[in-house]
Amino acid sequence: MEFKPKIPRPTVKRLSLYLRELGAHLDAERSTVSSKQLGTVLGLTDAQVRKDLAYFGQFGRAGVGYSVPILHAHLLKILGLDRSWSAALVGAGNIGRALLSYPSFEKEHFRISAVFDHDPRCIGEEIEGRIVHSIDDLEQIVREGEIRLGVVAVPAESAQEVAERLIEAGVTGILNFAPRRLDVGNAVSVASVDFTLALEQLAFEVSLGLTGTIDEDV
Amino acid sequence: MEFKPKIPRPTVKRLSLYLRELGAHLDAERSTVSSKQLGTVLGLTDAQVRKDLAYFGQFGRAGVGYSVPILHAHLLKILGLDRSWSAALVGAGNIGRALLSYPSFEKEHFRISAVFDHDPRCIGEEIEGRIVHSIDDLEQIVREGEIRLGVVAVPAESAQEVAERLIEAGVTGILNFAPRRLDVGNAVSVASVDFTLALEQLAFEVSLGLTGTIDEDV
Repeated sequence: MEFKPKIPRPTVKRLSLYLRELGAHLDAERSTVSSKQLGTVLGLTDAQVRKDLAYFGQFGRAGVGYSVPILHAHLLKILGLDRSWSAALVGAGNIGRALLSYPSFEKEHFRISAVFDHDPRCIGEEIEGRIVHSIDDLEQIVREGEIRLGVVAVPAESAQEVAERLIEAGVTGILNFAPRRLDVGNAVSVASVDFTLALEQLAFEVSLGLTGTIDEDV
Repeated sequence: MEFKPKIPRPTVKRLSLYLRELGAHLDAERSTVSSKQLGTVLGLTDAQVRKDLAYFGQFGRAGVGYSVPILHAHLLKILGLDRSWSAALVGAGNIGRALLSYPSFEKEHFRISAVFDHDPRCIGEEIEGRIVHSIDDLEQIVREGEIRLGVVAVPAESAQEVAERLIEAGVTGILNFAPRRLDVGNAVSVASVDFTLALEQLAFEVSLGLTGTIDEDV
């Protein structure tokens, strides 16, 4: 039986933030960090930091803090980032191109290894070192490359069909940029990035005179 | 004294989803909708829908459901979308261009009314009907246009400075695409869109064999 810990989603998001901060500490060759230091830079209490990290075992020592390289390696492993991930991108429009040139993907163990579009005008084009394939070849290339992550950057009206084709070809995680909910059943994870929702949140806060950081779900 | 209700952020995010769904019902000329119908399409329980909407008053009637046009108008008002919002975009790179051509912004009462960049090669260029201004003109144009929302689509290392300049010019809400936390004090709201974080969440779920929808913070 597989071990499936029940970890709250906000905790998982914060793990990514901790990881990024620990990376900066590693670069600066600092050997230990306290929950308070981690919390301060991320706008969290030290109690929250300790609680989040406690889901995964006892990493810290009272009065000493966490070992930066050990905690960094643990978090990489917990987040599945001790390997590298290939992703298939569908849609070579503006959002797709922005993703292809996004600097921190490669550093963070993600690589968009295949790009697809249905528009004959961009099929065959080279973008950031990758050739745009016809969407007709999606199933074959995703299967042969054993690609497990898909990025949906197509208009809302095509998003569901594209998601279904990716899943059929073996993808189990989808990053969705289309402004609609994908209906994918229970075998697949979906994370959505919705610019309009983010702006609506802001408008709401600004119009109420509320302030503060909305960072996803902190 | 201003009225500042304590509404959980996840509820606010779901209000945007309800609004979108109600818009579809309006387009289809349906006059009523039940909490169950709203919940089904969004993957929520009807109890959650009723609880969310109850923060803002009694909209529904038992056995009848909600009036689509009335609830739609209420949510628009609650979310501050009964007016239109101008935003200033800083950064005319790939992400900026993607935003300028994002179809649902205009429909949803947002308009990027000014675009800035520091690169002489794109200053003066017209993108989707808007001229790219020099970042030197940021303060003047944002002040004169009384622009309250800013979109930061510049590299991480420039993001903090750009945010400070926007705030100095009167912006009180920032949509941040740079992969770093902005330190803006307490007078400003920030919503962050971080592609790498989203992919990390997915990698985590896929590597653990977890599944389900990560939709921001449901």
